Amino acid sequence: MITSAANKKVKNIASLLSRSRERKKQGIFVVEGIKMFTEVPIDRLLEIYIEETLFKEVLAGKADEEFVKKLDQITGCLPKKDGKSCVAKDNGISVEFEIVRDDIFRKMSDTQTPQGILCVVKRMDKTFENLIREAQRREEPGLYLVLEDIQDPGNLGTMIRAGEGAGVSGIIMSDKTVDVYNPKTIRATMGSIYRVPFCYVSDLHRCIKDLQECDIQIFAAHLKGEESYDLQDYCRSVAFLIGNEGNGLKDETAELADTYIKIPMLGKVESLNAAIAATLLVYEAARQRRI
Amino acid sequence: MITSAANKKVKNIASLLSRSRERKKQGIFVVEGIKMFTEVPIDRLLEIYIEETLFKEVLAGKADEEFVKKLDQITGCLPKKDGKSCVAKDNGISVEFEIVRDDIFRKMSDTQTPQGILCVVKRMDKTFENLIREAQRREEPGLYLVLEDIQDPGNLGTMIRAGEGAGVSGIIMSDKTVDVYNPKTIRATMGSIYRVPFCYVSDLHRCIKDLQECDIQIFAAHLKGEESYDLQDYCRSVAFLIGNEGNGLKDETAELADTYIKIPMLGKVESLNAAIAATLLVYEAARQRRI
Repeated sequence: MITSAANKKVKNIASLLSRSRERKKQGIFVVEGIKMFTEVPIDRLLEIYIEETLFKEVLAGKADEEFVKKLDQITGCLPKKDGKSCVAKDNGISVEFEIVRDDIFRKMSDTQTPQGILCVVKRMDKTFENLIREAQRREEPGLYLVLEDIQDPGNLGTMIRAGEGAGVSGIIMSDKTVDVYNPKTIRATMGSIYRVPFCYVSDLHRCIKDLQECDIQIFAAHLKGEESYDLQDYCRSVAFLIGNEGNGLKDETAELADTYIKIPMLGKVESLNAAIAATLLVYEAARQRRI
Repeated sequence: MITSAANKKVKNIASLLSRSRERKKQGIFVVEGIKMFTEVPIDRLLEIYIEETLFKEVLAGKADEEFVKKLDQITGCLPKKDGKSCVAKDNGISVEFEIVRDDIFRKMSDTQTPQGILCVVKRMDKTFENLIREAQRREEPGLYLVLEDIQDPGNLGTMIRAGEGAGVSGIIMSDKTVDVYNPKTIRATMGSIYRVPFCYVSDLHRCIKDLQECDIQIFAAHLKGEESYDLQDYCRSVAFLIGNEGNGLKDETAELADTYIKIPMLGKVESLNAAIAATLLVYEAARQRRI
């Protein structure tokens, strides 16, 4: 059992939670909470940290059923263990498993009311080429979000969650977009981070041109847009360009779009929150495809 | 000029920014930033605090034009003042005006990069009765959001902003909803807080019944909903019930709805962020009303 905040692993978790550079360097990230643990793809899971009290609840049969099922699936004989750290194996995959004293666990956690479970997961971003190839294999019209320099972690997470709901094929992000493995982003995705394909690209303009070459129509919500977003046809493959919260799309980026559209705004509203705008667009595409 | 963090006014601002009870007791709230100042309704404005450096920029003619215009409109002779605190009058309205040394201003501010202007404003919430009466006077179909115990300040602010964009008639909130005058909520509204009518009510169920008596149809996005939200007719007066982020609508509240609807979700998404769901609904109403 881990009982010291000076423990190397505890320190590494803190560093992974606070520093995107460290996450990148180690190729891993941290997820917290019962839902995020229950949905984690097993082949990506590297380490599990469980709070002492929660572990006792598991042993006493008092913990969430789905949670215990997952824990059992990964660690096999776990509920019979005595609480020492161990390496459990299931399908040949080895996962580090550690019990952590409650006060130390609270220090490890990024949340105000930790749920007692935290794990280390292998990064899941794809290359642009793989993302497109896999999307095209699905043989249904593509639906992409192309994000330029989104800065708010919550906004990004919300877009991933709503994007999954609307059925996006993938999310393509400029390399100045906030880190998708930021704990706030992960929380806001509510698990969608495991399921929505995404990639970071260093040359966003090149990628937009590549999308066009794949016969994907590029739309940009823009002040120059005259036709309302709901009067366009999104039944074939489309991508929506979404700009940074403060500055919108860069001119050079907006110029690459095939079509400018506008989201009508009443009152004195000058713009909508980036996640709100992105959601209205992908859900309008989803609406048209349902009819 | 204010040069001490022990200044009574500085302390009161800190207390107003951090405590909703204090805001309620004094009947006032604090807004920050150039945009929020420029759009403040003059008849609600009580006190202005300006950072020394920004004030010098105003005097040197280097400040934002809209901002200086507003400052001039309120204080009349302001740019000729020597920097002492003063009471300026315009149209018989008196406003306290204070210059604050930069380091003290940074301490007063709730933001990481303060813009140098902060003001105290009279609360703007209405009674439920007034909100409905004023909306009905407009002689167009009503569009209401009814919020039950929304907890995230950013979500609430985003709903107010998107609500204005979609043309809502008013936002009705249970008294356990987060305080609309929370600095994070205010920032997220981007000024819409000044323009969207809103009220807090102690008996949300009574208000829903009152809305029904006014011939306003009540919709609830709900797991029991079978028909997709975009297949309903929102061209007459409607209200959407939006539940708490974690728990959704209480059963007793949902039961009052005339119609259950669902927002279709692909993948494994179980629910959408409350602000996202609210926006999809009011923008669908706006879309139908445009056609």
